[in-house]
Amino acid sequence: MTFTVGQIAAALEAEVFGAADIVVTGASEPASAKADHLALAMTPEFADGLAQGSARAAVLWDGADWQALGLEAAIVVPRPRYAMSGITRVMDPGPDIAPGISPMASVDPSAEIGENTAIGPMVVIGPRAKIGANTRIASHVSIAEDAVIGDDALIHAGVRIGARVQIGDRFICQPGAVIGSDGFSFVTPEKSRVEEARKSLGTETEAVNAEWTRIHSLGTVTIGDDVEIGANTCIDRGTIRATSVGHRTKLDNLVHIGHNVEVGCDTLLCGQVGVAGSTRIGDRVVLGGQVGVSDNIFVGDDVVAGGATKIMTKTPAGRVILGYPAMKMDQYVTAARNWRRMPKMLDDINALKKAVLKDGEDD
Amino acid sequence: MTFTVGQIAAALEAEVFGAADIVVTGASEPASAKADHLALAMTPEFADGLAQGSARAAVLWDGADWQALGLEAAIVVPRPRYAMSGITRVMDPGPDIAPGISPMASVDPSAEIGENTAIGPMVVIGPRAKIGANTRIASHVSIAEDAVIGDDALIHAGVRIGARVQIGDRFICQPGAVIGSDGFSFVTPEKSRVEEARKSLGTETEAVNAEWTRIHSLGTVTIGDDVEIGANTCIDRGTIRATSVGHRTKLDNLVHIGHNVEVGCDTLLCGQVGVAGSTRIGDRVVLGGQVGVSDNIFVGDDVVAGGATKIMTKTPAGRVILGYPAMKMDQYVTAARNWRRMPKMLDDINALKKAVLKDGEDD
Amino acid sequence: MTFTVGQIAAALEAEVFGAADIVVTGASEPASAKADHLALAMTPEFADGLAQGSARAAVLWDGADWQALGLEAAIVVPRPRYAMSGITRVMDPGPDIAPGISPMASVDPSAEIGENTAIGPMVVIGPRAKIGANTRIASHVSIAEDAVIGDDALIHAGVRIGARVQIGDRFICQPGAVIGSDGFSFVTPEKSRVEEARKSLGTETEAVNAEWTRIHSLGTVTIGDDVEIGANTCIDRGTIRATSVGHRTKLDNLVHIGHNVEVGCDTLLCGQVGVAGSTRIGDRVVLGGQVGVSDNIFVGDDVVAGGATKIMTKTPAGRVILGYPAMKMDQYVTAARNWRRMPKMLDDINALKKAVLKDGEDD
Repeated sequence: MTFTVGQIAAALEAEVFGAADIVVTGASEPASAKADHLALAMTPEFADGLAQGSARAAVLWDGADWQALGLEAAIVVPRPRYAMSGITRVMDPGPDIAPGISPMASVDPSAEIGENTAIGPMVVIGPRAKIGANTRIASHVSIAEDAVIGDDALIHAGVRIGARVQIGDRFICQPGAVIGSDGFSFVTPEKSRVEEARKSLGTETEAVNAEWTRIHSLGTVTIGDDVEIGANTCIDRGTIRATSVGHRTKLDNLVHIGHNVEVGCDTLLCGQVGVAGSTRIGDRVVLGGQVGVSDNIFVGDDVVAGGATKIMTKTPAGRVILGYPAMKMDQYVTAARNWRRMPKMLDDINALKKAVLKDGEDD
Repeated sequence: MTFTVGQIAAALEAEVFGAADIVVTGASEPASAKADHLALAMTPEFADGLAQGSARAAVLWDGADWQALGLEAAIVVPRPRYAMSGITRVMDPGPDIAPGISPMASVDPSAEIGENTAIGPMVVIGPRAKIGANTRIASHVSIAEDAVIGDDALIHAGVRIGARVQIGDRFICQPGAVIGSDGFSFVTPEKSRVEEARKSLGTETEAVNAEWTRIHSLGTVTIGDDVEIGANTCIDRGTIRATSVGHRTKLDNLVHIGHNVEVGCDTLLCGQVGVAGSTRIGDRVVLGGQVGVSDNIFVGDDVVAGGATKIMTKTPAGRVILGYPAMKMDQYVTAARNWRRMPKMLDDINALKKAVLKDGEDD
Repeated sequence: MTFTVGQIAAALEAEVFGAADIVVTGASEPASAKADHLALAMTPEFADGLAQGSARAAVLWDGADWQALGLEAAIVVPRPRYAMSGITRVMDPGPDIAPGISPMASVDPSAEIGENTAIGPMVVIGPRAKIGANTRIASHVSIAEDAVIGDDALIHAGVRIGARVQIGDRFICQPGAVIGSDGFSFVTPEKSRVEEARKSLGTETEAVNAEWTRIHSLGTVTIGDDVEIGANTCIDRGTIRATSVGHRTKLDNLVHIGHNVEVGCDTLLCGQVGVAGSTRIGDRVVLGGQVGVSDNIFVGDDVVAGGATKIMTKTPAGRVILGYPAMKMDQYVTAARNWRRMPKMLDDINALKKAVLKDGEDD
């Protein structure tokens, strides 16, 4: 693919300086840019890199002097991180999936396939499934009976979409994701040890875990519009109602969403997040990598949780949290600093006891 | 599928009241139930929902007055959570896998396929593999040479079962699970830095990690009867002996079981649990989501570990634990509360030092 | 497969005693060894097991008296753990993949396939991909357009290799791994709540997470020689430059490597490790299971992190760490011990306050 600098600037709605007709074939970091690359030098730290590389055109920070930097053309952007979304969208070739239905795919005759779709080899589409217009499905994907996928989806290789799952428009799904696995829900005839331990915080321990009996998942998974799901992420179906993911929410790789979970809109769940069954996550929430959320709780709107936070209890809207168990972020940072002071505290306490109580021995 | 209320009650061995011949097509939460749904109102909190929905029949808590709730029929159950297992088992249509062997599957002529099996498209079954009677295998599954699967299994799409793996009867496996990947086992010619660091808790640090040499996995994986494995979960094969999972044990999604691990019977491992190599997990153990277990240790029978517990050392039978590192659950809850008190403790200590030792400055 | 004891000793460059021509068909733990097995009794604790089993030949610890142990042949090794690499390499039959290209594979005519390769059923290889000589690819693997795989690779079932990914020689990849998924990178038009929260440690909370816009991943993934990747592990492509994994580095199962991450050489990342975007991991690093690493930081050469360590900040070379947040390992062990002493510390402080300050009440 080739682009003129002017085309890229137009896509960004950004100002262009100099020779807008220079043709570029890709984007690069400044120091490794070739002559036909657009260098991305969005902060002043990249100025030196421009001199090392060979780019004739660059995207620059607001206020940069493009001519002094030796460039022939420049695009200037006010918020560089946001500009990256436009530049990369324009330049992304996307995966190579041949139009039409591959002769090596297996599509049930009762499935409804929209116009202008691309379905790759080794894809299996089950009875009565519906695939929207312009949707592209890479190799090895399975879409089970009665599942519905909206328009303009991009489903990468090896994704598993279970029976009756409902997905909105503009869905993006990375390889290996599983949507609609059965929930992990088991019960014993009498109250189990784990039910008792949870109620008592571990002090009553008479009950025994007898043989587990399976609770089947009759519910499905519903996913809104503009959702993205990461590689090898798993979303379990609900027991009776559907597990749900709201509009514009994005899940990273290896995320686990238990049965009956409801995730709101505009929420980000980073890599390896786990959300246990029947929990609700609000709108505009951000959970950092490896965050864990207990079952049957509610994480309010606009909550931000730092990496590896373990959320054990209901969390009010807007809170910024960190730690195991989750605390307010500044409180946890203080706690972690204080842990390192504990040997000194113990010494101080012992010295005080010696001085005051004539009792210098500690445990 | 349709059922009479009487049929469902009979499957539950529960008492039915009113018009047992009412036909239902599915189960719903009370407030969203349609006229042909069975409402699940198993605790008194759901009473209001029954009035909002249109269900004519419901499953009710023990002691409920079904007629006062406006129902035409009711099933009453003493332990609602347990009743869910029966209701959902009866109503689960299961995945739609056509009987027989799909013409788009690749089954080695030397494989032994039991009676009444269903093998979906794009399945690959290797030389000398044995598949038991009534087993159903969804699309894209691979079963390698000499693997053995028992009777009545349900293996969902995209599961990978490695060479020589042995699995019992009534196995359920969610999409994308990998059973029989190679163990993660590497060794250096001389003692490595990590071996030394573990022995010394990090105080000796002279050794260097030289080039890692692979220890191959000659062992396999053995799985008992009535086991369920979650989506994208991975179980490594053993080095010499087999990695093993006992009867009736259930693993959730994205669980990692290292090489040589032995998991007992009737044990539950929740989402994203990780068990490092050569560790033993007892019977009737429950490990909550994101629990981690160190290598080469033993977690005793009936242990219950709360979410994200990190088990670094041998754990006696019956203990209820939480935290990183794992402590008794009540001890960890106390510790977490005390972390928030540390700023006050530091202030108190400084005030005491000022008063007693004439030394008001702290670090 | 059969081997003589002498052949195995030769492969190990180890000394053999007794009847070197005894034929064995496999390796076993001593107690369960059959007559045609080579018993692995590499420490004196296994001596009793030898008497229980039926092995005629064994691998023994340095200094063992093979004749007194009732054996007819013995191989003696100085460092048993290292010897395991040689024994298991010799005896590993490897997966059964028929030579040549399966008639049920789909290989694009423009792909370049090296000599002496084995490509299994249901494999899909895209346009212009290059596969090196002697490479073996099990069933259901997809290799997208323009990807390059070196010589002598072994790629297990269901692996996903994305467009333009570059991989060196002697690559081993366990089932279900995804190499080259899109990065998880989203941006809002104005500064988001999460950007503000990170800067202020959670004390400023005015900003709102507006609609997320996708930053596409134009970069790829580059992987050195002699790398091994675990089952269901995911490696995201870079935004502009490549995400990279250095020579001889090994990743375990369910590991998550974010976009732009650079992992050095000779490094081990154990099960369920997560590394967030744009972070650099040095050479000869070992990260234990479930370790998490924040984005945009550097973990120096030779760092060793114990299981579940959460690395939030830059870590100097050579450090041995543990905990959440990461501390020096001995410091964390001390902190965890002190948490259990806090109830006593609180009592002591209150007693001191009563004695000194006439203020016995605490919060």
